[in-house]
Amino acid sequence: MCASGSPPPPAAAGETTRLDVRGLQCPGPITRVKQAMSAMSPGAVLEVTASDAGFVADIPAWCASTGNTLLETRPDGANYIARITKGSASATATAAAPAAPGKKAKTIVCFSDDLDRVMATFVIANGAAAMNSDVTIFFTFWGLNVLKKRNAPPVKKGLLDKMFGVMMPKGPGQLRLSKMHMGGIGTAMMRHVMKSKRVMAPEELVAAARHAGVKLVACAMSMDVMGVHKDELIDGVEIGGVGAYLGAAEQAGMNLFI
Amino acid sequence: MCASGSPPPPAAAGETTRLDVRGLQCPGPITRVKQAMSAMSPGAVLEVTASDAGFVADIPAWCASTGNTLLETRPDGANYIARITKGSASATATAAAPAAPGKKAKTIVCFSDDLDRVMATFVIANGAAAMNSDVTIFFTFWGLNVLKKRNAPPVKKGLLDKMFGVMMPKGPGQLRLSKMHMGGIGTAMMRHVMKSKRVMAPEELVAAARHAGVKLVACAMSMDVMGVHKDELIDGVEIGGVGAYLGAAEQAGMNLFI
Amino acid sequence: MCASGSPPPPAAAGETTRLDVRGLQCPGPITRVKQAMSAMSPGAVLEVTASDAGFVADIPAWCASTGNTLLETRPDGANYIARITKGSASATATAAAPAAPGKKAKTIVCFSDDLDRVMATFVIANGAAAMNSDVTIFFTFWGLNVLKKRNAPPVKKGLLDKMFGVMMPKGPGQLRLSKMHMGGIGTAMMRHVMKSKRVMAPEELVAAARHAGVKLVACAMSMDVMGVHKDELIDGVEIGGVGAYLGAAEQAGMNLFI
Repeated sequence: MCASGSPPPPAAAGETTRLDVRGLQCPGPITRVKQAMSAMSPGAVLEVTASDAGFVADIPAWCASTGNTLLETRPDGANYIARITKGSASATATAAAPAAPGKKAKTIVCFSDDLDRVMATFVIANGAAAMNSDVTIFFTFWGLNVLKKRNAPPVKKGLLDKMFGVMMPKGPGQLRLSKMHMGGIGTAMMRHVMKSKRVMAPEELVAAARHAGVKLVACAMSMDVMGVHKDELIDGVEIGGVGAYLGAAEQAGMNLFI
Repeated sequence: MCASGSPPPPAAAGETTRLDVRGLQCPGPITRVKQAMSAMSPGAVLEVTASDAGFVADIPAWCASTGNTLLETRPDGANYIARITKGSASATATAAAPAAPGKKAKTIVCFSDDLDRVMATFVIANGAAAMNSDVTIFFTFWGLNVLKKRNAPPVKKGLLDKMFGVMMPKGPGQLRLSKMHMGGIGTAMMRHVMKSKRVMAPEELVAAARHAGVKLVACAMSMDVMGVHKDELIDGVEIGGVGAYLGAAEQAGMNLFI
Repeated sequence: MCASGSPPPPAAAGETTRLDVRGLQCPGPITRVKQAMSAMSPGAVLEVTASDAGFVADIPAWCASTGNTLLETRPDGANYIARITKGSASATATAAAPAAPGKKAKTIVCFSDDLDRVMATFVIANGAAAMNSDVTIFFTFWGLNVLKKRNAPPVKKGLLDKMFGVMMPKGPGQLRLSKMHMGGIGTAMMRHVMKSKRVMAPEELVAAARHAGVKLVACAMSMDVMGVHKDELIDGVEIGGVGAYLGAAEQAGMNLFI
């Protein structure tokens, strides 16, 4: 007996759940697959329909990395269909979770506040979270600007700190392309194109990463140099230095500097 | 008895083959060493003469990574000579191949279409292939331009897609330096200097990587955003998303973002 | 009996040594902790006072990575205090060194000569050295400029090599910011701010890395292309190519391209 408003019971072994992710751009499809699978029981089947041309290459990698079983992928008109059984063949029999592979954790240094590089950072971070990896992003130098609130409470600052504050972008909504910015025209055009093609905006990618449990660490030295106070950063950000970064990197199997 | 036109029989154990790679720049020497060694039997000896100043540091690393035995390196006037026995000392005795080391695979995200960064990408990729690594390069955002054919068949496009097409480089022959481009003068000068010093051009590096089996993957989302059709890309390119990239990265021991 | 001028005897088990690193910016505190601990006996205690806001996140990672035992961290006014026992709890009992973890080595490709990216390179390198990692930095393309002596002896060169020499920075003291350089004003302002906040200058970071045993390798091909002679580089630099780089990267657990 379910209380009203409680989540539906998980799909049982053998049952098929359908998921439509047409129109979603990378990493949307695998993020949604992960969410759907988490509500299913081992042995249950997920049938996914996607329009993303990368999906047929992504979903086998996703299954291999997360310990699930890909039954088939096939084109369906302009779309692609994948069918996945939750768990591995042997895991289904024993209902055991797949063994955790070593070094699945991943770290990214987000050094830049270029719109394009920040998007790459967060597409990879969200994709890795969808593959059940622990992800830490370390924001240093210009990258610190990504973590700024759009409208932070005023903080008392010296002249140079104020100048830095005025000259630098405040959060993902104000970032510029690393090339073809063209006084703002190129960046606006790129944002327009990405929106029309349903690519997640940087603001949405940051929100999705936070929701998926990606750990965001602000470089203490960069905050000091640029005169940024913790109150000016979005909630949930931790503060650390190179020791914290390297500690995470030593536990990780993939470390990128973007 | 050999049929006419068939390759020569492999050099046998104890026999010495000579290889002259003078004038070749990195990664030419180790690429040629790999090719020469593949035509030799375990226990056969390769004597290499190189002018590349990095060769004496590179060849011990190459031997250690590929399971071959470096007998000696020595200067020879302005050049360097290395003598290598195919296989390890014990492998020579047993004619067994060295055990495959784990995590030899390597991935590179080619995010940029700057001439200098693309050259770094492909020098590393070709070098890694020469060291018997599986290499995957994932081309995203501006990096996608590297994979464009110089003269692709016309594809029907909307206005914005056409604009992107006009503004961006088409293939490795049109790339610009990330700095000192100076309206084209700096890039032309750098290309001239590199050619005169026998550094492989980006076009040649891409061709060599394809020949060496480096896997080239184009980011599906970048193709969609920039309005690039598969027909506009060079042959042999696969299409994937962040899932395919991360799947490869999790199997690799080295992952760079360039 | 100690001869005059010899170092003091190491702090014995149970004894507490105090270390004041207030005012030092990252990676100063962990570098100093490493140095202080190396003069102590297993079981001895170090009490560190730091003002760096990242220190409370860094020091647990440092202890975990180096096999030492963190007793506590606590705020102390605007500062932070950490108490560390040298060695692990079991190591203290047996006086055994902690087992060397695999893949602690780290490599960085320093591709850029931007002031900001070079600082990131050397903060990470010094931090890693403080965590007992073997670190190799491979300087290629523009990154080669970081290794140039400020006042090298004149070397006979052709016209193009001379032009490269004039146009490019000579050593860490002449680097420019990747953005906001503003004809030199932005870079000068950033240098001023960093100095006033006691951030190590790039020159100091390079010197500290050399002192800590970080291996500096210059790319032979870049030297040839840019017409740089070994005499123009700082002392202690090795020369290598992509083979040497990849050999180091295959032995490392973290490989960054900056």
